[in-house]
Amino acid sequence: MTALGASPAPEGMSTLASATALQRLQAPVRDKLDEVTEEMWRAVATDAPLVAQMSAHLMAMRGKMFRPTLVLLSSSVNDRSEKKAVPLAAAVELIHLATLVHDDAVDHSVLRRGMPTLNSLFNHQISVIMGDFLYSTALNLLVAVGNIAALRALTRASTEMTIGELRQLAGTKPLEFSEDDYFALIRAKTASLMSAACEIGSLCGASEHNEALARYGENLGMTFQITDDLIDYTEAASTVGKPTGIDLREHKVTLPLIAALGRMTPAAKKKVEQLFAAETPDDSSIGEVIAIVTETGGLEYARGVASSYAAEAERALESLPDTVARTALIESISYVMERHA
Amino acid sequence: MTALGASPAPEGMSTLASATALQRLQAPVRDKLDEVTEEMWRAVATDAPLVAQMSAHLMAMRGKMFRPTLVLLSSSVNDRSEKKAVPLAAAVELIHLATLVHDDAVDHSVLRRGMPTLNSLFNHQISVIMGDFLYSTALNLLVAVGNIAALRALTRASTEMTIGELRQLAGTKPLEFSEDDYFALIRAKTASLMSAACEIGSLCGASEHNEALARYGENLGMTFQITDDLIDYTEAASTVGKPTGIDLREHKVTLPLIAALGRMTPAAKKKVEQLFAAETPDDSSIGEVIAIVTETGGLEYARGVASSYAAEAERALESLPDTVARTALIESISYVMERHA
Repeated sequence: MTALGASPAPEGMSTLASATALQRLQAPVRDKLDEVTEEMWRAVATDAPLVAQMSAHLMAMRGKMFRPTLVLLSSSVNDRSEKKAVPLAAAVELIHLATLVHDDAVDHSVLRRGMPTLNSLFNHQISVIMGDFLYSTALNLLVAVGNIAALRALTRASTEMTIGELRQLAGTKPLEFSEDDYFALIRAKTASLMSAACEIGSLCGASEHNEALARYGENLGMTFQITDDLIDYTEAASTVGKPTGIDLREHKVTLPLIAALGRMTPAAKKKVEQLFAAETPDDSSIGEVIAIVTETGGLEYARGVASSYAAEAERALESLPDTVARTALIESISYVMERHA
Repeated sequence: MTALGASPAPEGMSTLASATALQRLQAPVRDKLDEVTEEMWRAVATDAPLVAQMSAHLMAMRGKMFRPTLVLLSSSVNDRSEKKAVPLAAAVELIHLATLVHDDAVDHSVLRRGMPTLNSLFNHQISVIMGDFLYSTALNLLVAVGNIAALRALTRASTEMTIGELRQLAGTKPLEFSEDDYFALIRAKTASLMSAACEIGSLCGASEHNEALARYGENLGMTFQITDDLIDYTEAASTVGKPTGIDLREHKVTLPLIAALGRMTPAAKKKVEQLFAAETPDDSSIGEVIAIVTETGGLEYARGVASSYAAEAERALESLPDTVARTALIESISYVMERHA
């Protein structure tokens, strides 16, 4: 049923195959996803022209709606999803957007999902406050539903995300960043919100599967982030045909490098240290380090770890009834492992 | 009983008199304010060293705890305050701190309450995420109390504050900023949280006075902000002995100037326009515009408006029983009108 046994090919699926896979797993909740979009529009509506302009931009770049999909599928695993799943899914996506807006502001990013970021289109100040607006709008939605357990799950995830981000900004020396540090970071920054999304979904029609779905979401989130970090080593930028290595350029240490560092020759390690000593590493040194990480088995190791988390995510679903939604949740695991950037 | 009938002297109380007035109005809830501080400490406690460091700094600069005082006094107007007022008061102050941290980050401010801001001590990025951390920590506290009405009041106020800030950042031409724009702005940025503070307090032992206390808080907040904006025209910086005019320097238009603009001579208006055309206005042009605003009756007008809001705040308390807490709420109005920066 799933492709979890085999490691995905380094290239993953084609972008088209990836989009098709997403469409298939979203099919059971397609109509409700449209309602989520409408709910998000209603929630951010205001008569302040600037806010309206920014909201329109954000809605246009809102991406794949993967987290709302998780909420809706989780709420449907008993085939009796409740209506309130829709505003809760909208709240989860708004919180995700708020996080992206602040991350882009903090990183001074110019592009996100191929579109200009708010901080490049408007300015940094405005992005900071717009992120706050999106977050408190999400909370208004949650409060309107009035489910304290959902609120608890999401505010806990938000706190974890901010602590994760602060740990990252605190910046211990990059090359001293351990595997445990890395797991703690991605658990806080990525897995916590996916776990909360699935947990909240379960509260709308499948509350007896609450813990199982939270565990599924957490393991899926770990798989998601490790795969994301792998893509940075393997995915060719469309224009240059070489891996982009953006993380290395920004001195971000992720699992492939952490794994490789423990196994490489002193000469290779020296190359890595040189890259991290350079303020703006050049393409050739990035290419060299990507080659070292690949040859030392760093990518393979990270793929193995991602597969273990994927298997753990699938195990969490074992106790669930065999419904269309459960099948789509299983397919989500393969989608996450095999997708492109 | 109150000094509302008379306009406060331009100089307001001495700083010492102001501190004494604050102590007196906080006396009925002194012990509980200490509990609020403890609750805030517990809430921000984390094992991330950077977060701990920043929290310590923020707790040190946490100021007068005026909003928690409003929560506690409002909850005590029937002499039967409930325990949950303490965590709710802590949440209100944390939200206030989160707002200050983001405001300072957005404005690149260096000092706040005589202490270095987080963005000057650490950096801008860290302040943005630290503000998020404080806000979600506040929400965790609110969720733990589990009162949906309190959550609703605070998330609504947060949304209003962000929309207010965004309207300000959208920056219509400063000199076209109308009195209505000004009132809408300070209602969103200042009055909304004070209103929510009083409303939330009422939910802990005085819910039948819910609306009256929300109205009191809103009018108190309007008084508070107009007075704050007046101080910028009247208060001498301790070193130079002249009004600081920071708002004018930053091209911020507040009520005294708006009122004066409608009455001044074309020649005077030209001076104002020159100040707003200069990227960094010099002290002499700031001094000139302060003199124009004063002579044209702008300060007097703003004081009159502040007094009307103050009187409205006091009227809102009429239906309340005659308790120590109610007296302290009335005293809070004079304190707000007569305080220093």
